Amino acid sequence: MARLVLKFGGTSVADLERIRTVARHVKREVDAGHEVAVVVSAMAGKTNELVGWVREMPHVAGANAPIYDAREYDAVVASGEQITSGLLAIALQSMGVDARSWQGWQIPVRTDAAHGAARIDSIDAALLSERIAGGQVAVVAGFQGISADGRIATLGRGGSDTSAVAIAAAIGADRCDIYTDVDGVYTTDPRVASKAQRMEKIAFEEMLEMASLGAKVLQVRSVELAMVHGVRVFVRSSFDDPDAQELQTETPVGTLICDEEDIMEQQVVTGIAFSRDEAQISLRSVKDRPGVAAGVFGPLAKAGINVDMIVQIISADGATTDITFTLPEGDYDRAVGILENPDSGIEFDALNGSKDVVKVSVIGMGMRSHAGVAADAFKALSDKNINIRAITTSEIKISVLIDAAYTELAVRTLHSLYGLDAA
Amino acid sequence: MARLVLKFGGTSVADLERIRTVARHVKREVDAGHEVAVVVSAMAGKTNELVGWVREMPHVAGANAPIYDAREYDAVVASGEQITSGLLAIALQSMGVDARSWQGWQIPVRTDAAHGAARIDSIDAALLSERIAGGQVAVVAGFQGISADGRIATLGRGGSDTSAVAIAAAIGADRCDIYTDVDGVYTTDPRVASKAQRMEKIAFEEMLEMASLGAKVLQVRSVELAMVHGVRVFVRSSFDDPDAQELQTETPVGTLICDEEDIMEQQVVTGIAFSRDEAQISLRSVKDRPGVAAGVFGPLAKAGINVDMIVQIISADGATTDITFTLPEGDYDRAVGILENPDSGIEFDALNGSKDVVKVSVIGMGMRSHAGVAADAFKALSDKNINIRAITTSEIKISVLIDAAYTELAVRTLHSLYGLDAA
Repeated sequence: MARLVLKFGGTSVADLERIRTVARHVKREVDAGHEVAVVVSAMAGKTNELVGWVREMPHVAGANAPIYDAREYDAVVASGEQITSGLLAIALQSMGVDARSWQGWQIPVRTDAAHGAARIDSIDAALLSERIAGGQVAVVAGFQGISADGRIATLGRGGSDTSAVAIAAAIGADRCDIYTDVDGVYTTDPRVASKAQRMEKIAFEEMLEMASLGAKVLQVRSVELAMVHGVRVFVRSSFDDPDAQELQTETPVGTLICDEEDIMEQQVVTGIAFSRDEAQISLRSVKDRPGVAAGVFGPLAKAGINVDMIVQIISADGATTDITFTLPEGDYDRAVGILENPDSGIEFDALNGSKDVVKVSVIGMGMRSHAGVAADAFKALSDKNINIRAITTSEIKISVLIDAAYTELAVRTLHSLYGLDAA
Repeated sequence: MARLVLKFGGTSVADLERIRTVARHVKREVDAGHEVAVVVSAMAGKTNELVGWVREMPHVAGANAPIYDAREYDAVVASGEQITSGLLAIALQSMGVDARSWQGWQIPVRTDAAHGAARIDSIDAALLSERIAGGQVAVVAGFQGISADGRIATLGRGGSDTSAVAIAAAIGADRCDIYTDVDGVYTTDPRVASKAQRMEKIAFEEMLEMASLGAKVLQVRSVELAMVHGVRVFVRSSFDDPDAQELQTETPVGTLICDEEDIMEQQVVTGIAFSRDEAQISLRSVKDRPGVAAGVFGPLAKAGINVDMIVQIISADGATTDITFTLPEGDYDRAVGILENPDSGIEFDALNGSKDVVKVSVIGMGMRSHAGVAADAFKALSDKNINIRAITTSEIKISVLIDAAYTELAVRTLHSLYGLDAA
């Protein structure tokens, strides 16, 4: 017997038929003798509809007031998960499974006051744990909690993954199963590299890099949380037949995200991630003086623009410097506007930039103990005539910025280079 | 300055445009210097959609379990009002009006455990009152509260009227304005009698009879509650232009439901109500013996069938009795089945019945001090050859059961008889 949290996203609960399928997945685990909490998202499309209503609201008055009160946004939007939780509880009951819904405020899941993108402060899981131990399935409305002043607070988009991991930590679950539209985490995106393989296991740190660097299977926040609290997360498909023989086994198809120690044979490189949501800006011949970096990046930070890879090269005479950095594609025009503003006080000869760039990353815990991994990557890309525009590295990843046209070629080249191709 | 509760039903908040119109109604009252709480229903159609989802849910398993868990029904269905409350708060804020939404559990509105049709036990309105007194509009999600075990409980269909009156009582409001799709309470249904007139005022007791006997403008429960707590209820139209000159006055168009003492000139008859949802059953030559009435009505009560008008006539020899009674049309077939069941132990010669009947009622506080009101009604109906199948009376009302075909004729005849016709 184990204690499990099962999380189902919006497409998995998109309509009544799919909610019944989810109930069958849950029943399978209950029948196997496990204690179960389920965390659900809103039915697919529902959150967008609710958000749309909120956004449409203030246009008549057109006041200079903020677009909307985030506490009211939360009251409206959190109703989506509330509906799913009640419907799933009913579906489970109709199959003879004892179940009840739990809203964030009922548990309670306590959050900070950052409505719309709140962080979980703590979860009082005593009652929830007691009920689960008593054999009742807890159906938890994901994505939400209650702030100190008693208002509903949502965790921001994709927050249901975070809810699931947080609940798993709070009730001491043995595993948190994330049911999604893919059957696990792949060495890279199979749509780009057909030889991509599903991993059996991946370490928290690697998954965190994969998620941060472009893999969309899990929210970065939820991976962080899982790593900090040591919650084993299992990514698996919600599109399987819930009663299939393969799912009755102890080792169903999926990818386990776990401690490094739980992975017997750590590979040097685990996966290749890439992100197309990148842009590059280069400032040429910036007058070099103390504080020049702060002069450039201070105004951007103030505008809420997240700068990523930064490369700075001082000219031979030491008088000027070239600064290159990357940023999310959607912030490009705003950033250029800020830097070219004559009042900015930033002196440079020219600004070049491109939105047509992609960041490709090589990730693996084994890189820590293997020299030459980066050099191999640079050589392989160079052999294919792929120009590297910028590089950043950490202990367990190498990221290169290249022209977007070379994305597929670069991903496949690196995927082969590190022996990740399926036979 | 007054303290007001404004209640808006589903059609008044059917879409974003109409919610903005509601916000303008609220703003008008705020601008006039009043302290305001607003109680809202779900957007029209929303509750039906949610209820439909719940009802569809258990059909796959088809267990013999109850159709659904009323606590889960409540969790799902209450989300409709939650959404409206948040959207209206945002609409108000965009017009520069300080406002916040309040869910039933946040106030809290405490209910009993009868989920799906809960009764309000008490309302802790201290915080709500404080905020209202501070100039903030409270936008309250109607139709819901929280039960003793911390679950969301709904008050049953039309419960938002009840919420509004209960909130008005709890915060000591001077008036509870029910905005609806008609501009007040009429002497009878204008679709049936074109000479029907809007009343300026009607006493609680009269309104209670009108609502109980077929007038649909207000929930019976909400009128009871208003009567018990002395909450002045004002029925008015939500389809007026919120900024119309007429609405800026102290005496807008509508009907005030109030204490009898507040009505200067009490008329003998105030209004004519009718209900088409009636059926009649007659048992002929029932063997008369002690307890025969209990023998007939006991099994019906046990089956949850509400019997209304009862007429019993003993035969000349005293050996048998004819029993006639009315019941809701929808319960007719079930009732016949129960009575004709050989195991019922009820002996009678024949069962006649009809679903083609209507109950027409004459209502007025003044009837208490005026003799002959009933006799006038019987004569007027007889003059039109309308056959009366049953009669019940109370201090302030006379109800007659007649063939449905005569509904309009009877209503118009009585409406004229008591001087209610518009000039």
